[in-house]
Amino acid sequence: VLINGESGDTISAFDRGLQYGDGLFETLAVTAGRPCLWQRHWNRLQHGCERLGIPAPDPHRLYQEALREIGEQDRAVLKIILTRGAGGRGYAPPLDPQPLRIVTCSPWPDYPEKAANEGIVARICAARIPRDPTLAGIKHLNRLPQVMARREWDDPAVAEGLMLDSEDRVIEGTMTNLFLFKGAEIWTPDLSRSGVAGIVRGLLLERLRERGTVVRVTDIDQAELWQADGLFLSNSLIGIWPVRELAGHRFRVDLLDPSLVQEIRERAFGHGTSE
Amino acid sequence: VLINGESGDTISAFDRGLQYGDGLFETLAVTAGRPCLWQRHWNRLQHGCERLGIPAPDPHRLYQEALREIGEQDRAVLKIILTRGAGGRGYAPPLDPQPLRIVTCSPWPDYPEKAANEGIVARICAARIPRDPTLAGIKHLNRLPQVMARREWDDPAVAEGLMLDSEDRVIEGTMTNLFLFKGAEIWTPDLSRSGVAGIVRGLLLERLRERGTVVRVTDIDQAELWQADGLFLSNSLIGIWPVRELAGHRFRVDLLDPSLVQEIRERAFGHGTSE
Repeated sequence: VLINGESGDTISAFDRGLQYGDGLFETLAVTAGRPCLWQRHWNRLQHGCERLGIPAPDPHRLYQEALREIGEQDRAVLKIILTRGAGGRGYAPPLDPQPLRIVTCSPWPDYPEKAANEGIVARICAARIPRDPTLAGIKHLNRLPQVMARREWDDPAVAEGLMLDSEDRVIEGTMTNLFLFKGAEIWTPDLSRSGVAGIVRGLLLERLRERGTVVRVTDIDQAELWQADGLFLSNSLIGIWPVRELAGHRFRVDLLDPSLVQEIRERAFGHGTSE
Repeated sequence: VLINGESGDTISAFDRGLQYGDGLFETLAVTAGRPCLWQRHWNRLQHGCERLGIPAPDPHRLYQEALREIGEQDRAVLKIILTRGAGGRGYAPPLDPQPLRIVTCSPWPDYPEKAANEGIVARICAARIPRDPTLAGIKHLNRLPQVMARREWDDPAVAEGLMLDSEDRVIEGTMTNLFLFKGAEIWTPDLSRSGVAGIVRGLLLERLRERGTVVRVTDIDQAELWQADGLFLSNSLIGIWPVRELAGHRFRVDLLDPSLVQEIRERAFGHGTSE
């Protein structure tokens, strides 16, 4: 673990990341010793810094730290945590924050190929994802709603749980973004009031539009889910997972163009690039 | 700082308290070397543990750690943080969690007497407090909404900011609970969907009812605020603050029975007891 560029695996008990969840994180796939989609992850981190008012780190230094932490590993998961550091008076942030950077690597999870090919089983969680436009879209450290949702099941056959907001709108999975096939269109939830704007989600939206698919970013209620022709999920470590079954409803898993799936997988974690 | 009973001021970078805000905290006044309203704070902590599924610590051991950390200090602030510890697979908690206890003491803040006697100036924050019934009432570590709200002003003349939820209901201050005088009644926001059920709030509700005051715990919109005869705020370190001015509106500050204010202050931080 690199903490502000130094080897170590502990942080101050007074750090605001612990005290209030006052910080951000990014989780990146590493392939061929390089973090994938670096530029996109960096952009989101920087955007999160602006939103929270945390000074952004030097991107070149952060990238060098990522490479140091990856070392000789070919395939791994890189996690970057950035907090506002210690200090301030209660919730009031310090005037001159000294942010904390934590860079860690962990083993590549090796999700079964089956999930990507045959689709996964998902559930609807009872825990809701709160609406908060101030924090929507960014990947901040206040993740108790996701922890509460993930606590609801321990059946290893269920790979993901979808979360609704307090108005019964479908927002995302605990760790993935959601897409629906609606006839010739693809819909995905509007994340302006809650949720995390995933990196692979952003890449998918771009590529779908470039290919001429009509993509709607919109409010989606539960009824729309059941009426969808198909569903799929995305994140930086899984790429794309079709949903084969959601809360007992079965869906087609062959609706997404295999060449697009392949392209996304390649760009998401097929080979490390700093694109 | 005592960390799991040992002196030290660092925690693992893998602790879920940092990674997800997966934990709870309590802030207690210390007077005459004893934590005030200990039993009530303990009850809330234990209730939070049940809600999050974190094994509760041994209360006697925690109390002994609090006394050790207080040491020779007469008047201070005691903060207890309890996290789910490290481990688990992503958001999924570990099956056998090893919670982390952090006990720290900091100097008593010495809020000016003037605030309690003449009332304070407050504002309405733009940042909203998200609705989340799963987490409502407990004092968990996901406090970014409060940080965002507290960042909105730096005028030292403004002592507190009130926060609304996404439905424009008034919930609480960034660090206080709110009460309204409505004729002969006292109203306070319903905290079943968001907010922290404060210890002094609980004490006040009991004492007001014992004295025969009609207390309504209910949904309160902004219009009700402006129509109130008076407002006051409570927390464990300030006791009770009348609101003299809110967003330019002036309010009476003499509506609360001085003997009740005195009693609450005595019990909240006048003398340390383990009541």
